[in-house]
Amino acid sequence: MIKEKKITETIGLAPGTLVHVGEEPLRPVTITLIEYDKDNYRQKEIKSIDECFPISDTSMKKWINVTGVHNLEIIESIGKHLNLHPLILEDIVNTEQRPRIEDFEDYLYVTLKMLTYDEKDEEIDLEKLSIILGKNYVITFEEKAANVLDIIVNRLKSGNTKARIRKSDYLAYSLLDVVVDNYFALLDKLNQLIEHLEDDLVENPTSEVLMDIYELKRELLFLRKSVLPLREIIGSLCRVKTSLIEESTLFYLEDVYDHVRQIMDTVDIYKETISSMMDTYLSSISIKLNDVMKLLTIFASIFIPLTFITGVYGMNFSHMPELEWNFGYYITWIFMLLISVGMLVYFRKKKWF
Amino acid sequence: MIKEKKITETIGLAPGTLVHVGEEPLRPVTITLIEYDKDNYRQKEIKSIDECFPISDTSMKKWINVTGVHNLEIIESIGKHLNLHPLILEDIVNTEQRPRIEDFEDYLYVTLKMLTYDEKDEEIDLEKLSIILGKNYVITFEEKAANVLDIIVNRLKSGNTKARIRKSDYLAYSLLDVVVDNYFALLDKLNQLIEHLEDDLVENPTSEVLMDIYELKRELLFLRKSVLPLREIIGSLCRVKTSLIEESTLFYLEDVYDHVRQIMDTVDIYKETISSMMDTYLSSISIKLNDVMKLLTIFASIFIPLTFITGVYGMNFSHMPELEWNFGYYITWIFMLLISVGMLVYFRKKKWF
Amino acid sequence: MIKEKKITETIGLAPGTLVHVGEEPLRPVTITLIEYDKDNYRQKEIKSIDECFPISDTSMKKWINVTGVHNLEIIESIGKHLNLHPLILEDIVNTEQRPRIEDFEDYLYVTLKMLTYDEKDEEIDLEKLSIILGKNYVITFEEKAANVLDIIVNRLKSGNTKARIRKSDYLAYSLLDVVVDNYFALLDKLNQLIEHLEDDLVENPTSEVLMDIYELKRELLFLRKSVLPLREIIGSLCRVKTSLIEESTLFYLEDVYDHVRQIMDTVDIYKETISSMMDTYLSSISIKLNDVMKLLTIFASIFIPLTFITGVYGMNFSHMPELEWNFGYYITWIFMLLISVGMLVYFRKKKWF
Amino acid sequence: MIKEKKITETIGLAPGTLVHVGEEPLRPVTITLIEYDKDNYRQKEIKSIDECFPISDTSMKKWINVTGVHNLEIIESIGKHLNLHPLILEDIVNTEQRPRIEDFEDYLYVTLKMLTYDEKDEEIDLEKLSIILGKNYVITFEEKAANVLDIIVNRLKSGNTKARIRKSDYLAYSLLDVVVDNYFALLDKLNQLIEHLEDDLVENPTSEVLMDIYELKRELLFLRKSVLPLREIIGSLCRVKTSLIEESTLFYLEDVYDHVRQIMDTVDIYKETISSMMDTYLSSISIKLNDVMKLLTIFASIFIPLTFITGVYGMNFSHMPELEWNFGYYITWIFMLLISVGMLVYFRKKKWF
Amino acid sequence: MIKEKKITETIGLAPGTLVHVGEEPLRPVTITLIEYDKDNYRQKEIKSIDECFPISDTSMKKWINVTGVHNLEIIESIGKHLNLHPLILEDIVNTEQRPRIEDFEDYLYVTLKMLTYDEKDEEIDLEKLSIILGKNYVITFEEKAANVLDIIVNRLKSGNTKARIRKSDYLAYSLLDVVVDNYFALLDKLNQLIEHLEDDLVENPTSEVLMDIYELKRELLFLRKSVLPLREIIGSLCRVKTSLIEESTLFYLEDVYDHVRQIMDTVDIYKETISSMMDTYLSSISIKLNDVMKLLTIFASIFIPLTFITGVYGMNFSHMPELEWNFGYYITWIFMLLISVGMLVYFRKKKWF
Repeated sequence: MIKEKKITETIGLAPGTLVHVGEEPLRPVTITLIEYDKDNYRQKEIKSIDECFPISDTSMKKWINVTGVHNLEIIESIGKHLNLHPLILEDIVNTEQRPRIEDFEDYLYVTLKMLTYDEKDEEIDLEKLSIILGKNYVITFEEKAANVLDIIVNRLKSGNTKARIRKSDYLAYSLLDVVVDNYFALLDKLNQLIEHLEDDLVENPTSEVLMDIYELKRELLFLRKSVLPLREIIGSLCRVKTSLIEESTLFYLEDVYDHVRQIMDTVDIYKETISSMMDTYLSSISIKLNDVMKLLTIFASIFIPLTFITGVYGMNFSHMPELEWNFGYYITWIFMLLISVGMLVYFRKKKWF
Repeated sequence: MIKEKKITETIGLAPGTLVHVGEEPLRPVTITLIEYDKDNYRQKEIKSIDECFPISDTSMKKWINVTGVHNLEIIESIGKHLNLHPLILEDIVNTEQRPRIEDFEDYLYVTLKMLTYDEKDEEIDLEKLSIILGKNYVITFEEKAANVLDIIVNRLKSGNTKARIRKSDYLAYSLLDVVVDNYFALLDKLNQLIEHLEDDLVENPTSEVLMDIYELKRELLFLRKSVLPLREIIGSLCRVKTSLIEESTLFYLEDVYDHVRQIMDTVDIYKETISSMMDTYLSSISIKLNDVMKLLTIFASIFIPLTFITGVYGMNFSHMPELEWNFGYYITWIFMLLISVGMLVYFRKKKWF
Repeated sequence: MIKEKKITETIGLAPGTLVHVGEEPLRPVTITLIEYDKDNYRQKEIKSIDECFPISDTSMKKWINVTGVHNLEIIESIGKHLNLHPLILEDIVNTEQRPRIEDFEDYLYVTLKMLTYDEKDEEIDLEKLSIILGKNYVITFEEKAANVLDIIVNRLKSGNTKARIRKSDYLAYSLLDVVVDNYFALLDKLNQLIEHLEDDLVENPTSEVLMDIYELKRELLFLRKSVLPLREIIGSLCRVKTSLIEESTLFYLEDVYDHVRQIMDTVDIYKETISSMMDTYLSSISIKLNDVMKLLTIFASIFIPLTFITGVYGMNFSHMPELEWNFGYYITWIFMLLISVGMLVYFRKKKWF
Repeated sequence: MIKEKKITETIGLAPGTLVHVGEEPLRPVTITLIEYDKDNYRQKEIKSIDECFPISDTSMKKWINVTGVHNLEIIESIGKHLNLHPLILEDIVNTEQRPRIEDFEDYLYVTLKMLTYDEKDEEIDLEKLSIILGKNYVITFEEKAANVLDIIVNRLKSGNTKARIRKSDYLAYSLLDVVVDNYFALLDKLNQLIEHLEDDLVENPTSEVLMDIYELKRELLFLRKSVLPLREIIGSLCRVKTSLIEESTLFYLEDVYDHVRQIMDTVDIYKETISSMMDTYLSSISIKLNDVMKLLTIFASIFIPLTFITGVYGMNFSHMPELEWNFGYYITWIFMLLISVGMLVYFRKKKWF
Repeated sequence: MIKEKKITETIGLAPGTLVHVGEEPLRPVTITLIEYDKDNYRQKEIKSIDECFPISDTSMKKWINVTGVHNLEIIESIGKHLNLHPLILEDIVNTEQRPRIEDFEDYLYVTLKMLTYDEKDEEIDLEKLSIILGKNYVITFEEKAANVLDIIVNRLKSGNTKARIRKSDYLAYSLLDVVVDNYFALLDKLNQLIEHLEDDLVENPTSEVLMDIYELKRELLFLRKSVLPLREIIGSLCRVKTSLIEESTLFYLEDVYDHVRQIMDTVDIYKETISSMMDTYLSSISIKLNDVMKLLTIFASIFIPLTFITGVYGMNFSHMPELEWNFGYYITWIFMLLISVGMLVYFRKKKWF
């Protein structure tokens, strides 16, 4: 369900060399420029990144969203315009980088993993989102067009929300908030899977169930690996002393931070749940084995003595008095029945059936 | 036994949008206004929340309890009257929110999970309680009427307790105290379940026992998830520097904090106990299997050789001297008896029965 | 072996209400007043607690030991005399309370769990000890007469120890020291049990052994739960800034603290040991099962083919040439012997026996 | 796959005694002196270490790479020239030392474990790299010629990189960066192994798979042991206050630090994954056993009763009426067929096949 | 292999009472006085401890080594001469005490567990070493003559080492260094045991292997318990602010501290390795069981149907047409062969053999 990409491709390259690390892109890079203030909202797809600069030419707040990070010229051009640190640029194009936050004097760089559950393909979609927050602009870089961000676009368009009035830091917060909210959807999905497996756990412990439990564990570990640095980042975002984030936005960020911690708590609970499932599964397999063996033992214990008796009277000794008895055959049957009934009573007492 | 609700419904909504997240309400919202001081006590159900404001019109302390958080107008109205932060309001109506504490200048916001064991339905009841503590008032929001709070109402009514004399922070403390006390009841219940399972663990390890152990683990994880933030909240309540909580009340809060830690300790002990139960269960299943197999082996090992012997003398070779012997049949019986006894002695020595 | 008591009985009571929580008392409350200084030692059982007050009427140090905490008047009376905080009084009578320490200006309150191993009943005895340390007095409350404290009484009586010369804080330290020493006795007992179980673990893994391992784990968890807060308490006792504890006594307290940490280390080691025992037990059960199955397989694999052969020559076909051979019967025997020997050699090679 | 060397050989030696601890060297020691600045690059193999000193004779930055640490004279000579602490020298020649960092006034000493995956021999290569960073020089000591460092040599040679312009601390950073990057290659390799094992886990759980899982766990533990101190070292390198590392290089070091933490996260995920694999493996073995036993039970349960019936009519009683019936034989066959079909239907219902 | 001694013997004794706790001594107490400075070295066995005092009568550094701590007069006499704290004396004679460090104004007290592997008896030797470091003297107390200390004596004797020139703190450091080095030898030994067990783990999982794994785990836990406080002690020795330890020696101590941490890392790795071994062992037992059961099932599944067939034609019905056929017997054989081959092909396909 999840595919992690190789991170070895950059080994040996000088730091700061721009190399796109990630899956080959399928779509061309699109750049969307959104300008907004309390009363106005303008959105257009632009061809050349240079149209956006200088970034503070108007009094409107700007949001530049770059979809696709494999076009290195665009990234480099933005880097030059805003005087970004070379490692930041390298980080943007490397989609494997660990989430991080960097606090520069005139901008703040945050990179996140966006996890979304793709209902259609039944897959977890992992995508990197890089955010540069400046005085009155936000630049976002996403690997491919994720409809996650559309939510925010619509909110800005609709016009009556705080998002239009407040500064750019509120937009950055909104982005984080939406990313974090998507983790909850994933958790719900995993919860469904867990509940689904629980039904089969004791009743029907097949090897498919086993494989599903294992899969689930893997996905949970993957999720945890993504959330862990997220918590760290948003945590340090709450503590960072920067003029770029206003006091009032900090409060909202703390709310997001609480959400991330709630996600971590839930992931940990799920992890322990799945461990218990594995133990329960193993026990339940053992119970099944016990049942199988009990059945075998009941059959064997009843018929093996009986077969022995028939064997005795199937012997060809010339002198076997019982064989001559008139009721020998019937007596044998009665004897055998008694044995069977005795065994059955014994096993019944043992509660074997 | 426990049902967690979905948290995905608010994804994509602008922060601060009031949307009630939680089960559909069954009862109408009721608002209870309690006014009290050393000598007086007045309680009435009110229709409109506006009757309560301005909140500090009298010298009496006020407690407004809102049962049901799905009526958004009431919440919004309170928010306007007291100038509450929009995220606080969102938090109140969202019953899935992680417990938290927010310290504003003129009020303190605390939200908790109340867990009560419903003896009738054999269910754990999870309910959110939000508390706003102001200078001389406390406002509480509960999802549905929980008789947990009645205890405090009665205490206030009876009149001779400290609760009437002391400030509103003491009322807030009392609420926390009652909530925490209810966790102990849950622990007792879980302890009963554990002890009940222990009896069956080795003697009668059926798959029902297995499922019960698993259930118990799940509930414990759920409990732990609820207590964890509770500890944090009450801990920070003890350390928070606010004029709203008096020095003398802090001491009481520390007592509650000690209780919560005791709960955590116990939950952790139970968790380890249940892990041990699972291991013990698995081992005990293996022992049972061993017993089954021993029985089968005893039966098979005794009768298979005997049956072979009868088979030998059931062969139809024209020349088989033993068949002609006068006492051949009896000698065979004696031989077979000796073998049986020998095997029995062998298994006895091995302590198989 | 261990019985935990319910803690739910106080739910819903106003804080500070004195209710005795614990097992019903069997013995009447006794109060012992010990007065001592360098040269004198007076001990008497007193009827009324009022005889002890005012507490600093003489220059001698006082130790008041109250055995039995179910007489609420006595507790309340002491509370009034010394102006104790109401929660402290509640804490003294509630024998389920978590160990804690409270530092007031003119007294220090410490409550501990005393664990002693009752050799006679093979039980762990859990008892609460509350200590109030004042300027020149110590008041102790124990649930029932524990001979643990006699050690200290005797030491004081004998007269030549430091205990007589030094201040009351030294007496308080001595009490802690004796309580902690008793934990070591328990550890020794548990160690014996562990070693005893180890002998049976691989050789004789019965279900009794399994139950014993489980029991042991439970007791260890219980022990751990008691020691954990003890460590905390004595640790904070070492750091507390109070005029009631002299510099020189602090050094002794640190010694006790070291002991408690040693206990914790040992408990943790034991816990891991028992986890290993459980794993070893399960493995050893599996080995036994393997042995059983090997025996069955050897028997079955040898005799089933032989029985088949006898079956062949027991058939009644009219034309079976072998049956007419002169040495047919003997050849069959030789053939069967060869098969048996072959199988035995095969199993021998596999090291099955 | 991994071989750890003994660390006991230095026991009993006075501290500061130079003894080479490690595998016997196969190659002679080579010393490479690289001098570079913005415009020049000179590289030569030198015979005597003394040619390099005094180290700051030119304005060019120097990099002295010593391949092979078993020539103690060279190490001692460098020590004398640069006035290194005796323990540092001991540390350089002891290839078993734990990674560490030492901050002296005029030089910084860092030692690391380089782990590289040797594709040819399918082995993990463990090598120690010691770095001494001075004002305008870097001295590196490697156990044997590792092509890891060639990457940096080439980068310096090519001339247009920052490496040539920036100070020696940047060279030191580059070395760390390359070492850390090689860990990622190892992780990729381990990931491949994990995915490879996953395929066999449920379908084909042989004992080879078991051994491979165990091997993998061992390697992961080994990897973890190497990364743990690495994280520590680079972490403290980021915090160290020294004039040897420039502000701008610190930023790069933090990037490396992030990488190391990412490695740790991944190692921990892998560790948990392998634990799950082990559990899954055990469960899957149990499923296989169940299948085997079901087959046996089906066979036995069908044929044992049938064999009993044939045994009955193989008895030689003189009076057995069924034997005389005309259709006795056919009736018996029909009866036996009914039993077989009945059993098969029963097992089918139980979903045994 | 390891024997822990009882710690209960001192319960009830007044603190500061000198009681020797430990195994009964076999050898008499010997006191060795070593005096040394840059140019001189004098060593003699002395009869009375009083010969050593006053301790600073000469300008030479002194090392008094007391072998055997059961002679309480000697300990007490030293205590009086140096004005040692009574608890320190108690600690010296109590060989069960947790390692600790105490920093007094004019001396430093350190107590350690020395673990040495006794090759002859294949036993781990646990011994306590107490060190008192004064201005120009070191006093050591060892339980019995351990040749560990001889290493240092020889180093001092040989004369050309730093040990002779540097102050007494360097001697103390050397002692710690030698003790810690001996832990490495133990780790090597354990590593050998682990590798030895790994060979048998999958191939030959007998109950001896199981017991060995369990033993190993126990020893490792024991080792861990000893190293844990050692790390703490040496760690706080590095941080302690005392004039007794010179700046330059601190650097050496940090080196020892690094060693201890390396030991802890290794112990933790070993612990996890052994846990994996236990899991692997259990799985490998299950594989063996599977193999046994497969063999049984193959035998049973082939011969049970055949035996049934022979049973059919062994029946004595008067009318059984097949019996009269000319080739009935041969046809039966062919039929039985076909069944056998069919079963074998089936099991072969299932890869059972």
